[in-house]
Amino acid sequence: MQNFEYYNKTKIIFGKGTEKQVGSETAQYAKRVLLHHSGGSAVKSGRLDRVKDSLKQAGVAWVELDGVKPNPRLSKVYEGIEICKKEKLEFVLAVGGGSVIDSAKAIAIGALDDGDVWDFYQRKRKADKALPVATVLTIPAAGSESSISSVITNEEGNLKQGVNEECLRPVFSILNPELTYSLPPYQTACGIADMMAHVMERYFTKEPNVELTDELCEGTMRVMIRNARKIFSGGGEDYNPRAEIMWAGCIAHNNLLNTGRIGDWGSHPIGHELSALYDLAHGASLSIIFPAWITYNIKEDTPRLARFAAKVWGVDGAFYDYEQAALEGVFRLKNFFRSIGLPVSFADAKIETSRIGEMAERAVRFGPVGNYRKLNKNDVEAIYRIAAE
Amino acid sequence: MQNFEYYNKTKIIFGKGTEKQVGSETAQYAKRVLLHHSGGSAVKSGRLDRVKDSLKQAGVAWVELDGVKPNPRLSKVYEGIEICKKEKLEFVLAVGGGSVIDSAKAIAIGALDDGDVWDFYQRKRKADKALPVATVLTIPAAGSESSISSVITNEEGNLKQGVNEECLRPVFSILNPELTYSLPPYQTACGIADMMAHVMERYFTKEPNVELTDELCEGTMRVMIRNARKIFSGGGEDYNPRAEIMWAGCIAHNNLLNTGRIGDWGSHPIGHELSALYDLAHGASLSIIFPAWITYNIKEDTPRLARFAAKVWGVDGAFYDYEQAALEGVFRLKNFFRSIGLPVSFADAKIETSRIGEMAERAVRFGPVGNYRKLNKNDVEAIYRIAAE
Repeated sequence: MQNFEYYNKTKIIFGKGTEKQVGSETAQYAKRVLLHHSGGSAVKSGRLDRVKDSLKQAGVAWVELDGVKPNPRLSKVYEGIEICKKEKLEFVLAVGGGSVIDSAKAIAIGALDDGDVWDFYQRKRKADKALPVATVLTIPAAGSESSISSVITNEEGNLKQGVNEECLRPVFSILNPELTYSLPPYQTACGIADMMAHVMERYFTKEPNVELTDELCEGTMRVMIRNARKIFSGGGEDYNPRAEIMWAGCIAHNNLLNTGRIGDWGSHPIGHELSALYDLAHGASLSIIFPAWITYNIKEDTPRLARFAAKVWGVDGAFYDYEQAALEGVFRLKNFFRSIGLPVSFADAKIETSRIGEMAERAVRFGPVGNYRKLNKNDVEAIYRIAAE
Repeated sequence: MQNFEYYNKTKIIFGKGTEKQVGSETAQYAKRVLLHHSGGSAVKSGRLDRVKDSLKQAGVAWVELDGVKPNPRLSKVYEGIEICKKEKLEFVLAVGGGSVIDSAKAIAIGALDDGDVWDFYQRKRKADKALPVATVLTIPAAGSESSISSVITNEEGNLKQGVNEECLRPVFSILNPELTYSLPPYQTACGIADMMAHVMERYFTKEPNVELTDELCEGTMRVMIRNARKIFSGGGEDYNPRAEIMWAGCIAHNNLLNTGRIGDWGSHPIGHELSALYDLAHGASLSIIFPAWITYNIKEDTPRLARFAAKVWGVDGAFYDYEQAALEGVFRLKNFFRSIGLPVSFADAKIETSRIGEMAERAVRFGPVGNYRKLNKNDVEAIYRIAAE
């Protein structure tokens, strides 16, 4: 087990009707806030009005900025920064999913900085301060509601880049599973793939003696799988499976599950290139890449891949050798993704194979990716080719 | 699943050699601190000297107060409060196990209060402020290193009482598993029983649809059992089992495992009376009481008790009815406690049965105990009688 620090200050307010607490919680930090959202379902469902009512009752004023898209754009971030500076806003409240939250975090850094916020995403500078950010989560997926991460896409060059800094961790996040009833199935599924991937990136490690986090990861994944099945078998408006998925998605990325271990994190950048070039949803890029990643690494600590198959997918190790068991795990992982309507190949997503070389090059532009096994351009290209099949 | 708030601000610094960071971490909060410890093994092992060196290097001055005993005494707390007030100390640093930490927390409340600190433990007043507390943990057990709890014994009347307030949560805790190599087997075992009980108190709930926390509880208990076996099979100075136990003990009580559920918490007050009257170690009181508690409740949601047997103890449900499976679970729980040298009956601990009525009366002095099933005086007496056998 590696030495580690574990710290997570985000206050999670979880359950039915909790969005009504947003005003009183926000008022503890600020009286003038940027209210950031997509402008889509939050408005139509009346959810945003409930948030505004709560802010009003608590005496909190806001300026609204909507229009955030999936794979949130740098141009929108610039717009938000300008508003914050001009209107002297003290706080960024995100109502939405990971895209809105990541955009809010980027705005929060930029609002306290005089330079170009993209510098931080290009790793030219390190962000050490930001306006406080809080969230009302409506799409369980990215785990951004209690994480230090923000991923932004620069439209010029289709570059998708992330920043990870403690100052970006939300001060509070409100998670009401009822708000997720109206999510379209594809968005629900993409969210589940994203949170599964967050656990898998942590689970696949070469670090020995990490029993507790192994068990916690395996249990969390089993819960995601079982409850995804419930939601996709007509339980989309049942509170409990929605609640299990929402809480599991938060735990998946709050850093508990990688204490003492070094996760892989190769599949994320490999998937990012699919999103950047084809505007594919993040979760769908992961449902395509992760099975291919395991397949490509099948000789790489095969017992761990077999354990994943056994503990998470119920593959009976007694009837297989490690490699067979691991491959059976990949088969079940793909079946699971397919069963909730996600693509598991380029063909499924109607993505051409002609730009594989270019994507591989871009994926490793900062050097090899992944820790479980360092992947260079040729490795990444091979993974894309497996995924293309 | 119940609505919940989850918040835990304690920064955990975990791993080899981490006690050397105590000075720099403390200096972020205070320049004059109370250094609180038992005066026992921390001194002999040279551990306390390393802590002092680190404080010195960071320019932190301290006043020392040692002599904390298991089931920490109110008289020592009064002493600490007086020192803090007289010396204008700003921070309480506990180097030790749960007793030292709980004593430090009580001192931290009292140092900012003009009345009698025992009022808070008697539930006459609510504690809403305290000096910041931090810990260098040397005995994994109580989970007090990241919890809001403090339990103190008032020697007058042998009353053992607890306070649970957010202001008591340590600002940081340093967990170095190496510091636990020298723990005597009995203390190691008592710690393991205590952390097992913290999970069991949360696990036994009537709340349906708490799948994620069920899985996390079960995984955490399996890790405790497997690693306890390693430690007691000659692995007392192996880093990894000590590390798994130490981290699991912290997770057991940091409140993640009871999000969305209402735990039982009946066995703790029932055990407290054994500690108060016979000065029995807290963990040993729980290894006696918990199996008796399950046995007494065998008809109370038997499927959950059977699930505990199956998921935690590997009892094969297919060969038993629920009640038989649950009782087999109790059998294995007792065997486990015995195998690490803990008592599972009054006789094992050489405790007489003559004061059972008196203890039962005291255990319910604030009303019935437990949520899984409300236990009145007669119930508690029956549990003591099962435990006496």
